[in-house]
Amino acid sequence: MSSATAPNLIAAVSQERQWDRLMQLARLGAIPGDGVNRPCLTPLDREARRLLIGWAEAIGLSVSVDPIGNLFLRHEGTDPAAAPVMTGSHMDTQPAGGRFDGIWGVVAGLEAVQAIRESGVRTTRSIEIVAWTNEEGGRFAPGCMGSMAWSGHSPADTWDAVTDNDGVTFRDALAEHRAAESDLAQRPLGPVEGGPKPYAYLEAHIEQGPRLEAEGLDIGVVSGIQGSRWFLVELRGESAHAGTAPLGMRRDAVQDMIRAVTALNALMADPEDILRFTVARIEVEPNTSNSVAEVVRFTIDFRHPDKEVLILNGDAIENTIRSAVKNCDVTVTERFHAVPVDFDTVVQDAVEDAARAQGLRSVRMPSGAFHDAQFMVPVCPTGMVFVPSHKGISHNPAEYSSPEQLAAGARVLAAALATLAG
Amino acid sequence: MSSATAPNLIAAVSQERQWDRLMQLARLGAIPGDGVNRPCLTPLDREARRLLIGWAEAIGLSVSVDPIGNLFLRHEGTDPAAAPVMTGSHMDTQPAGGRFDGIWGVVAGLEAVQAIRESGVRTTRSIEIVAWTNEEGGRFAPGCMGSMAWSGHSPADTWDAVTDNDGVTFRDALAEHRAAESDLAQRPLGPVEGGPKPYAYLEAHIEQGPRLEAEGLDIGVVSGIQGSRWFLVELRGESAHAGTAPLGMRRDAVQDMIRAVTALNALMADPEDILRFTVARIEVEPNTSNSVAEVVRFTIDFRHPDKEVLILNGDAIENTIRSAVKNCDVTVTERFHAVPVDFDTVVQDAVEDAARAQGLRSVRMPSGAFHDAQFMVPVCPTGMVFVPSHKGISHNPAEYSSPEQLAAGARVLAAALATLAG
Repeated sequence: MSSATAPNLIAAVSQERQWDRLMQLARLGAIPGDGVNRPCLTPLDREARRLLIGWAEAIGLSVSVDPIGNLFLRHEGTDPAAAPVMTGSHMDTQPAGGRFDGIWGVVAGLEAVQAIRESGVRTTRSIEIVAWTNEEGGRFAPGCMGSMAWSGHSPADTWDAVTDNDGVTFRDALAEHRAAESDLAQRPLGPVEGGPKPYAYLEAHIEQGPRLEAEGLDIGVVSGIQGSRWFLVELRGESAHAGTAPLGMRRDAVQDMIRAVTALNALMADPEDILRFTVARIEVEPNTSNSVAEVVRFTIDFRHPDKEVLILNGDAIENTIRSAVKNCDVTVTERFHAVPVDFDTVVQDAVEDAARAQGLRSVRMPSGAFHDAQFMVPVCPTGMVFVPSHKGISHNPAEYSSPEQLAAGARVLAAALATLAG
Repeated sequence: MSSATAPNLIAAVSQERQWDRLMQLARLGAIPGDGVNRPCLTPLDREARRLLIGWAEAIGLSVSVDPIGNLFLRHEGTDPAAAPVMTGSHMDTQPAGGRFDGIWGVVAGLEAVQAIRESGVRTTRSIEIVAWTNEEGGRFAPGCMGSMAWSGHSPADTWDAVTDNDGVTFRDALAEHRAAESDLAQRPLGPVEGGPKPYAYLEAHIEQGPRLEAEGLDIGVVSGIQGSRWFLVELRGESAHAGTAPLGMRRDAVQDMIRAVTALNALMADPEDILRFTVARIEVEPNTSNSVAEVVRFTIDFRHPDKEVLILNGDAIENTIRSAVKNCDVTVTERFHAVPVDFDTVVQDAVEDAARAQGLRSVRMPSGAFHDAQFMVPVCPTGMVFVPSHKGISHNPAEYSSPEQLAAGARVLAAALATLAG
């Protein structure tokens, strides 16, 4: 019998312990309606990390952090020199986020490793649970900074000058954060700084879409992630008095934004409703009701599973805007570009085998959301485990997966990690 | 020879002194490009008031404040019991405002009264220079709170709960402000609290429009003010994950705002370009690039000189929005409604006579901007004096009127005040 199907291991996963930990963490940054607002690199974030570290140290895991704040909890294998298996996700949330997005992948990793240790399963390879810095991009855009830096996708100083809504730079927030965690063991920034490449990376996450629930399934064996392109658009006109300036003489940045988004809606129209196009962040200057807007900045979040569509439509964004606006100067900056990725079949097989061995209903499916996992693809064999999300609601306080669904996910994760760690 | 044409009085108006005072005040809240950002009820505002008070006391004016923070500088007439003539304007600015909007009307009032006193012109009536609280509405919306409360247009506690961008209520800001000025003499809130009705009110202001400059004129004899209606629109949808939520299932508040403003643009279309329709303040929640917008709030500033158009189009705003939006709950709140007003011919004649006597070119013209003067119309004979604004630019650091233009305006104001005060 392989470790993946060992009854001891499966039985050692505790639904109650995992749920209790999630609920304890959900209190840190709790907002009305069962939501959580826990931005990265804040005192709340550090409080959540300390809670997690306490649980990890209590079962004998070793704790370390890297220069961009990624947190690692290590279970030592019988061959410490062998490339480790990694699992994990992130602990930050959207400003009006839920209790499961990200944090469950970290807690599930701990639950899986704790079950492996308590059931006496010996793994050759070490298993490292990671909590990546700033996956959400809610405080500092874009997201996935921790995994992008770690994997070598982008230099770690790429986002030094990015500011949050209070004008704090990412560099300063990170420096404050690292000072607050200077008591923890330090480690290099992954393979970029000479650290070992993992043997495999397997991330557990809620689906954040409606499919598993709608089809009555337990487990999503994630086959890959659609591509994402993020843009920041700045329209710069001229302020004027709302009562005196004739409309025909204005350079009104709000009106040019209306023109730009209307034209983008036409560009992005998709009768099949596969394409995702979102304008969700708008800043106006001076943003006072009786002064014509001088500047509008708005974001574009554009995603598609087909690389061709991602390139064609994404590259057409700037000209579409320039053709639509009448009076403003236009600046379009691409801030994030992640091509669609396919996950490794070895990792997918390990997840699918674990689900089947436990009698769970699974399906191979792509991910609509992006995840830290996509930046691990060039580094090592990578995959993900999904559990159902109620009505597909996510980035919202109403986000929900049941204790039973999350326990099933942790059991599959434990078995797959045990298989991969050998 | 009437006092309005007394050569001594005209000669006593000092172009240099007035300009120097304006430049001293412009340093308080200076922003790049010769602009000023001096919100009401702030330490900066109080610093500007203290500077003004110092100049007033130095020439023997008596200083007092009322319960909503309006500041009065009184020149005593030979008959202290006679209804006073009032002049003045406001000292607060837009967030990216200029050096002349509002503040010139206060400084010109002081210059005119100083010239009257120094030239030995005796007036029967007292002259009171007023600086009204929060005309701009930039920090607390709507504007003209000081004059609306003083004139009895609205109870003084109407705006207690209005908050600024930092969440400070108007009530708290006013309480802090009054405490900081508790050393000044206190007076009742005008006729509302039993104070005397003025004999007349005459406000000097920059035009904030292009007409006087374009037509080579020195003085605008203001015939009235177009009507204004301000609305706050809230669209409430549902947040969702930008990567997973199908567009067809979203309740995206940004997209409904695009629909609403597009429909409003059609409603407000005016080939003659007389109508003023402005959307200049937008707030989005949660305002993060990868979470579909749950809430959008935007303002509407709508103005027209014709009362019928103001009623018809203004009353159509809510239904136009409701018909346009697809997915969000809609709340439309009217926050400000000022009907078009006509100024008194007695005051207009006094201004026009003063301009003619000084050889200045004047025209009777309506005001596109609203002013505290419009709330004085039901209280006493009211009028305004305009001087040219370079290119009509206002609510902008580039706002400009020359020392010569402003001095001409102060001379006309001095002569008209002397005439009205008898």
